[in-house]
Amino acid sequence: MIRVAVVGSSGYAGGELLRILLGHKEVQVTAVTSEKSAGQHIAFLFPHLGRLCNLTLEKLDPTELANKADLVFLAVPHKEAFTVAAKFVGVGVRVVDLSADLRFRDTRLYEEWYEVEHEQPGLAHMAVYGLTELYRDEIKRARAVGNPGCYPTGALLALAPLVKEGLVELDSIIVDSKSGVSGAGRTPGLTYHYPEANEGMMAYKIGTHRHTPEIEQELTNLAGSAVVVSFTPHLTPMNRGILTTAYAKLKEYKGPETLRKMYAKFYKDAFFVRVMGKGAYPNVNAVRGSNFCDIGLYSDLRTGRVVVTSAIDNLVKGAAGQAVQNMNVMCGFDETEGLKHLGMFP
Amino acid sequence: MIRVAVVGSSGYAGGELLRILLGHKEVQVTAVTSEKSAGQHIAFLFPHLGRLCNLTLEKLDPTELANKADLVFLAVPHKEAFTVAAKFVGVGVRVVDLSADLRFRDTRLYEEWYEVEHEQPGLAHMAVYGLTELYRDEIKRARAVGNPGCYPTGALLALAPLVKEGLVELDSIIVDSKSGVSGAGRTPGLTYHYPEANEGMMAYKIGTHRHTPEIEQELTNLAGSAVVVSFTPHLTPMNRGILTTAYAKLKEYKGPETLRKMYAKFYKDAFFVRVMGKGAYPNVNAVRGSNFCDIGLYSDLRTGRVVVTSAIDNLVKGAAGQAVQNMNVMCGFDETEGLKHLGMFP
Amino acid sequence: MIRVAVVGSSGYAGGELLRILLGHKEVQVTAVTSEKSAGQHIAFLFPHLGRLCNLTLEKLDPTELANKADLVFLAVPHKEAFTVAAKFVGVGVRVVDLSADLRFRDTRLYEEWYEVEHEQPGLAHMAVYGLTELYRDEIKRARAVGNPGCYPTGALLALAPLVKEGLVELDSIIVDSKSGVSGAGRTPGLTYHYPEANEGMMAYKIGTHRHTPEIEQELTNLAGSAVVVSFTPHLTPMNRGILTTAYAKLKEYKGPETLRKMYAKFYKDAFFVRVMGKGAYPNVNAVRGSNFCDIGLYSDLRTGRVVVTSAIDNLVKGAAGQAVQNMNVMCGFDETEGLKHLGMFP
Amino acid sequence: MIRVAVVGSSGYAGGELLRILLGHKEVQVTAVTSEKSAGQHIAFLFPHLGRLCNLTLEKLDPTELANKADLVFLAVPHKEAFTVAAKFVGVGVRVVDLSADLRFRDTRLYEEWYEVEHEQPGLAHMAVYGLTELYRDEIKRARAVGNPGCYPTGALLALAPLVKEGLVELDSIIVDSKSGVSGAGRTPGLTYHYPEANEGMMAYKIGTHRHTPEIEQELTNLAGSAVVVSFTPHLTPMNRGILTTAYAKLKEYKGPETLRKMYAKFYKDAFFVRVMGKGAYPNVNAVRGSNFCDIGLYSDLRTGRVVVTSAIDNLVKGAAGQAVQNMNVMCGFDETEGLKHLGMFP
Repeated sequence: MIRVAVVGSSGYAGGELLRILLGHKEVQVTAVTSEKSAGQHIAFLFPHLGRLCNLTLEKLDPTELANKADLVFLAVPHKEAFTVAAKFVGVGVRVVDLSADLRFRDTRLYEEWYEVEHEQPGLAHMAVYGLTELYRDEIKRARAVGNPGCYPTGALLALAPLVKEGLVELDSIIVDSKSGVSGAGRTPGLTYHYPEANEGMMAYKIGTHRHTPEIEQELTNLAGSAVVVSFTPHLTPMNRGILTTAYAKLKEYKGPETLRKMYAKFYKDAFFVRVMGKGAYPNVNAVRGSNFCDIGLYSDLRTGRVVVTSAIDNLVKGAAGQAVQNMNVMCGFDETEGLKHLGMFP
Repeated sequence: MIRVAVVGSSGYAGGELLRILLGHKEVQVTAVTSEKSAGQHIAFLFPHLGRLCNLTLEKLDPTELANKADLVFLAVPHKEAFTVAAKFVGVGVRVVDLSADLRFRDTRLYEEWYEVEHEQPGLAHMAVYGLTELYRDEIKRARAVGNPGCYPTGALLALAPLVKEGLVELDSIIVDSKSGVSGAGRTPGLTYHYPEANEGMMAYKIGTHRHTPEIEQELTNLAGSAVVVSFTPHLTPMNRGILTTAYAKLKEYKGPETLRKMYAKFYKDAFFVRVMGKGAYPNVNAVRGSNFCDIGLYSDLRTGRVVVTSAIDNLVKGAAGQAVQNMNVMCGFDETEGLKHLGMFP
Repeated sequence: MIRVAVVGSSGYAGGELLRILLGHKEVQVTAVTSEKSAGQHIAFLFPHLGRLCNLTLEKLDPTELANKADLVFLAVPHKEAFTVAAKFVGVGVRVVDLSADLRFRDTRLYEEWYEVEHEQPGLAHMAVYGLTELYRDEIKRARAVGNPGCYPTGALLALAPLVKEGLVELDSIIVDSKSGVSGAGRTPGLTYHYPEANEGMMAYKIGTHRHTPEIEQELTNLAGSAVVVSFTPHLTPMNRGILTTAYAKLKEYKGPETLRKMYAKFYKDAFFVRVMGKGAYPNVNAVRGSNFCDIGLYSDLRTGRVVVTSAIDNLVKGAAGQAVQNMNVMCGFDETEGLKHLGMFP
Repeated sequence: MIRVAVVGSSGYAGGELLRILLGHKEVQVTAVTSEKSAGQHIAFLFPHLGRLCNLTLEKLDPTELANKADLVFLAVPHKEAFTVAAKFVGVGVRVVDLSADLRFRDTRLYEEWYEVEHEQPGLAHMAVYGLTELYRDEIKRARAVGNPGCYPTGALLALAPLVKEGLVELDSIIVDSKSGVSGAGRTPGLTYHYPEANEGMMAYKIGTHRHTPEIEQELTNLAGSAVVVSFTPHLTPMNRGILTTAYAKLKEYKGPETLRKMYAKFYKDAFFVRVMGKGAYPNVNAVRGSNFCDIGLYSDLRTGRVVVTSAIDNLVKGAAGQAVQNMNVMCGFDETEGLKHLGMFP
């Protein structure tokens, strides 16, 4: 049994971490922090946790927290995480960071897209990118993990086999993603005001979303040469879920059945990736609340393209669930511990 | 570890039973049945259970099933349950019936409102009404439990303390309930067609809904004299949840704080009932997916009325969750086993 | 053709006034104001009006505006309206005020519930309560109309015939209303943040909502003696619509058919009130976007109660539509001008 | 004033035609037909039309109907339209067909994708494809118009300027569309059952949707050489709207501002196409209920691609609204008559 703390517990990812960790056999949550809600009982912010969690939010004091926790989840905004992460790692507390701060090996990319100076490039360089299915071995030994963004998780699981196996033209990749509104966080704003978001659908930050370089970094790693993608995120009227539709030109035509077999093999050790059968396509309603990523495949001779769709829950596999999955790997627990029975339908 | 079977596994309550039972430590699901989907893998009907449940639906053969299960959940339509229930009980297999067939001690009431002859009045008489918080002791010894309807669960937990303690005029009770669409089941129909139900809100079956006599039976038991209520169900554009707003005239005025204390005492042993504090009212979004029932209280001198609101998830506390809670009590398991960490927000 | 202005055009009621007025044959919109958005083109705030409306928002200058408009709609918050209204009325410009400031004949009631001093009690006393169906003759001669609140509109149209005809016990009236989220206005807040409001349902301000005294004032007028009601508003996950379920004890039992005939007669001159036939109940999806109020009736001997349900669009019959209806009556236009073809389904 | 009839009035497109036509100054609706609902008052099927439309549905008798109507809208399923259309055209009644039957000049394409024999290839050849913005002159003289599919309308308006002007690589075009559920029609089915569609998002019929050849026919016409596209439709949890995201490789890079100017010029006579300014992207919530198509443009040097997003209401510009727009053009009415003030927000 290890002791864990959640830093930045007032947002949706923080709440979701608690939901998962409270049902996790190997873990005790010893502290939850929030700068603006310090002093409040967790159930005041998250009524659904009433009677299940008796913690009170405290202000973050890294030194004190280091005495209470063996591993810390950081669910704070980007730029606020790297300093805190460095403190914890410095005293031997392991870190899973849900912000963008530890996702980039080359922090110049981070600085360019996030328009902020990265003050811990060494830590970022040392940290492991937490897409568990791709970096399981590195994560086992990691002191700090940069948990992937929600969009990159869906996009990379959809594209990794194709790119890794060299099956597609690298300059042909398009990622069109549709996200539920919780992906925008818990801070109210006009765009997310119910009467505006409900019955609405739009693309936003076309070509300029900060998850673009993250997708490109990992596809480049997989390909062994530079990959540039067109990435378009969309705001969709639902609480949770990301449906990603990825397009790429096949170097040499392969039918859907061949591709399905290749994907099944690629993900044969990945409990949380379900490659769907003939004619079946992922729906976010089948991964709601769960850590699964469902993948569907289509290709045709008409266009010479492969179309991959993937569905994840942005707050689970796209955030808190994957963070716990990474903790499980880091700590030698069963990778699925606490993560198996989270899904809910309808 | 006991062996359980789910009869009628293709609907939402059946799916929800599986979600819960698959994470239950004391139970092994040994069979799932469906007349119309027999032969299909469970994940075909419920993609969210893919990789978690490897069962194939079979046609119901009570004799065969009795060899595979120590306890059976019946999630079949009313009128189809009493015969099957009788067979299982006859051979010593315990039954939790989610239909209406075993909810009425006096089956004439059933016959009047359900317009069908009850062929097992003896079994119905012997069965225990499965509102766990009210019948825990009887359920411990029960061979057959009639699991409550979704609306009655929310209404009775809201009203039981007031009626039991004799605080309200019995002819003044009004129950106004708002249910998510999953309460109508999984069979498509124009009323539940997305473009009709979405952005819609209506009362239906005013004064004639079959849950009315069920509410009245139990309130009458609690009061010790006949209770008649006005009950109005509403169809609300959300997947899950029932918000019940109950009104009654106080015989003698009592303020909200007094009522809250009284409720807290009444439910002091009820893990799944959360009586809310001053100024806080239940929202179905805080019980989504969970077995909790949240209760809020208001009263004022202006009107001399008490207004109680309760929130449940119709598929959990209103169906599958309460069924498992009843199983836990029947089998001597911890009442909360498998039911603690089900809730999901947002 | 008259000239009209909309003061406070940046909220939902303001936007809805423009939608309606732009299609109105007898009216030209000459000015739109907004303190915080002055200088912006209307289509910046309301992209759906792009190419239809070429107005730019200006700051409110009552003197200047009085030269541009024969009638002014006030869609500003309560307490901000009475001063402005007084200025316009003082120079002969007619006013339809959508705030609460001119709804109360007895401003002490206003001051008690709105916790603010009313600085224009004389104007409030002179103004007409703009429930068109009840005050049509007075509205014809009115200089200032206090347009009803959204909840009172639905509640009063549902209850007026019963109370006016003296059919119900006056101390037995309960109003349980379910509103779409646009009723809360366009200012973001956590309660209305999409992931919180979506898939949520709750009662709020039980017994304390400010529309309570408005309902009581009008029912008291109709009854000729004091009426006190229990009023419970609910927040419902939909953009528009209020479904009101009203309960009252019949002094002497009358069946639904008798009540329907009585209502049909009561509303025989009310184009926008549709009394529904046997077994049919209102759904907000049938009045979405329109100025109609649909009414359904149920009563039974079991309880001796009548249950009336009404459906309106809170932004139309509950706000902007009724305001235009009142303008039509004040100006001698056809009462339905601009209001007939607004509804949209699905 | 002309007389029009709506054949197949019980579906959403039929209902929407009535909403629009009832507010149209130049038109009288003289008959509405439905095979399965004949004999019922229109308000039974469409309660929102109660008091606005006093028609009763009748069975279709083309000979009789030809005496009552100068122009007929066909809102029946594909394969049922061509025979009826031929009868009307044969006796001089003009036809706007909302099915696919008259959309293809080369009916072999229709036969291949719709898997049915086309029995009126001559009529199909003569009919005009009803994308008003592209075929206005031909529509003026048309006897029969094949009203475009909903997806093709959004896709073609998004891509026409690029393809017509020869700016993009023709083999690089990808169309990723997200549609509200009303696009699937009014017949209930499990996929569209509220608890399944709500909070769900999926791609379907990837690469095989029947709107694919329609998009390709028109892009081929515009390009002057064969165009093949990847088209992926998605089911989105909202009642109305299609958001299309189209991708193409620019032959020679052009910035967004250049593209916006080019689009503005291309659509300078198109009242219903609104090209959005810098940094603004279409949202279906701004075209809900209206006949507008909003278009947003993005391009970047990184990828050399242009990304065009368009938003329409699938039932209006994607069906009934465009049908009326075509009627207006055919009959010499103002193209915007009856179509200007239909939009509703929120």
